[in-house]
Amino acid sequence: MAVHIQGTRTFKFSLPPRILACSSVVGPKEGKGPLASYFDVSIPDDMYGEQTPEKAERKYLLDACNIAMGKAGAKPEDVNFYIAGDLLNQIIAASFTGVKLGIPYLGIYGACSTAAEGLIIAAVLVDGGFADKVLAATSSHYQTAERQYRYPIELNIKRKPTNQYTATAAGAALVHGGPQGIRITYATVGKVVDMGVSDANNMGAAMAPAAADTLYAHFTDTGRRPEDYDLIVTGDLSRVGKVLLQDLMEHRGVPMGNNYDDCGILLYGDDPSVAAGGSGCGCSAAVTYGYIVRLMTEGKLKRVVMCATGALLSPLSTQQGENIPCVAHCVSLEV
Amino acid sequence: MAVHIQGTRTFKFSLPPRILACSSVVGPKEGKGPLASYFDVSIPDDMYGEQTPEKAERKYLLDACNIAMGKAGAKPEDVNFYIAGDLLNQIIAASFTGVKLGIPYLGIYGACSTAAEGLIIAAVLVDGGFADKVLAATSSHYQTAERQYRYPIELNIKRKPTNQYTATAAGAALVHGGPQGIRITYATVGKVVDMGVSDANNMGAAMAPAAADTLYAHFTDTGRRPEDYDLIVTGDLSRVGKVLLQDLMEHRGVPMGNNYDDCGILLYGDDPSVAAGGSGCGCSAAVTYGYIVRLMTEGKLKRVVMCATGALLSPLSTQQGENIPCVAHCVSLEV
Repeated sequence: MAVHIQGTRTFKFSLPPRILACSSVVGPKEGKGPLASYFDVSIPDDMYGEQTPEKAERKYLLDACNIAMGKAGAKPEDVNFYIAGDLLNQIIAASFTGVKLGIPYLGIYGACSTAAEGLIIAAVLVDGGFADKVLAATSSHYQTAERQYRYPIELNIKRKPTNQYTATAAGAALVHGGPQGIRITYATVGKVVDMGVSDANNMGAAMAPAAADTLYAHFTDTGRRPEDYDLIVTGDLSRVGKVLLQDLMEHRGVPMGNNYDDCGILLYGDDPSVAAGGSGCGCSAAVTYGYIVRLMTEGKLKRVVMCATGALLSPLSTQQGENIPCVAHCVSLEV
Repeated sequence: MAVHIQGTRTFKFSLPPRILACSSVVGPKEGKGPLASYFDVSIPDDMYGEQTPEKAERKYLLDACNIAMGKAGAKPEDVNFYIAGDLLNQIIAASFTGVKLGIPYLGIYGACSTAAEGLIIAAVLVDGGFADKVLAATSSHYQTAERQYRYPIELNIKRKPTNQYTATAAGAALVHGGPQGIRITYATVGKVVDMGVSDANNMGAAMAPAAADTLYAHFTDTGRRPEDYDLIVTGDLSRVGKVLLQDLMEHRGVPMGNNYDDCGILLYGDDPSVAAGGSGCGCSAAVTYGYIVRLMTEGKLKRVVMCATGALLSPLSTQQGENIPCVAHCVSLEV
């Protein structure tokens, strides 16, 4: 039975739901990065043989779902619910993939925090006795996101140093109540934070305060400290936001220490073409379900907190001169 | 403790969460319709004094949240979670309202099914012991939706008879585990259904099969029949979809009977300017939290099932020649 830590926004899962299986499917650029060997599949073609990048993104997402279920020997009819979202207007990657899967569906939107939001709702459904198996999935695609949020890539606009590069990647996790897999022990739900940043070319700066807010709440609510985790990852503040988060947490008396890293940096390493680092729903999903879960399975990491960060702007809100509200959700994973 | 009816997509809430308080805030057109006297507030100005309809929509939504909390004597800090979504790209109405509320936030997207999706997740959080009070809210606005999905209203495009009219309305429900209020007894989660309809001017036809799929599952899973309910409402199939749903259910051996109606028809009555009827996330929310809950509170209805229906298209998916996948979620409400 779940416990909501009284008066907080943190769940403690007493009989922790577990990640029975998970998957990561990435594009060609991601498949040449430093984490290449950790992903299940790297598709050499951005377009995955499709005529539009939106259709390609769906294939990445569907593959991720099928691989996660396949590893667990599960079929769609064995899965009670499919929780998914993505960056596209009306989350069409998630919803159209829902047609193919035929699994009862709850659509979510948290921008790049979607991987954590989905995992939290999946864990709640399993821990609360509402489901046996829940699939939480998300995706992003460089081309679909660039043309929706910024410019068609054909324009070849020069990137600013604070820009992040939307990952072409999808990830899925099959959460269950059985005894196998990585445990989901705690989760902290984020508040929407607006600290006045309005530069849509600097998402890291916009998202860092939301990450600080959620991580601070997580440490306070659980009584844990950063040093209690082998790895703390944000996903995805990248280089600009990472430093800001470290500063913000230092000022709050909770220095992040040496075990802190960011999915947007881990995914691409020092590749200068991505500017500040990676972003997109698929970034934290692929890094978590590919790299981190592998290290945990191999015993190299025992306790990890993944804090996925989302910038909740739309191109319209930016055009209307609005700030960028952000949210971050975090999930503790333990062997 | 919740019960997931084994092998189904229906939840049975054994100690049912309840709607402690709820609210409906509507625009000038809705405030002149047949349900006018049931809404908490009717704002005489579509724009609610703002420069853009997007900012106006947020004010409708924020008012709905504040009114629901106010009726219960609750402040934002008394509410554990805020579950919300809307029709706008990146659900900016819900997210930007989250900044003002400061309540931990889970963003959802189910198009016009959002009212039911939010109520389901709220009920799950309360029933599973994850929260004491959860606010589920949604909104839509005629001007924001028309210019995003179809044409700027300044063009004055002639409506087709199958068109629906997006309601300017917001609704919120404060769900809790205490002994007061309307009980949420069952919920059935929808699958994404694509029956090949691709006409974005005929959402009712696209959504009817999803409503039939979910309602049929609901009746099968619960062992109930349409005649067990004093009222079955879909929200919002309107005139075209309502007849299709009746046909589809008749063919499945579960005729909908005389207690069936649709929120999109109830909201505007015979007003010819809305063509087939109303739509939008705010339509089913305002009709449910204004009209239906009032009738239940007055003892005129005892058992209602609300099946909110959503068309999961984006303008881009339509331009790319895709069909319109749809989903419907339903919730049983009992005195």
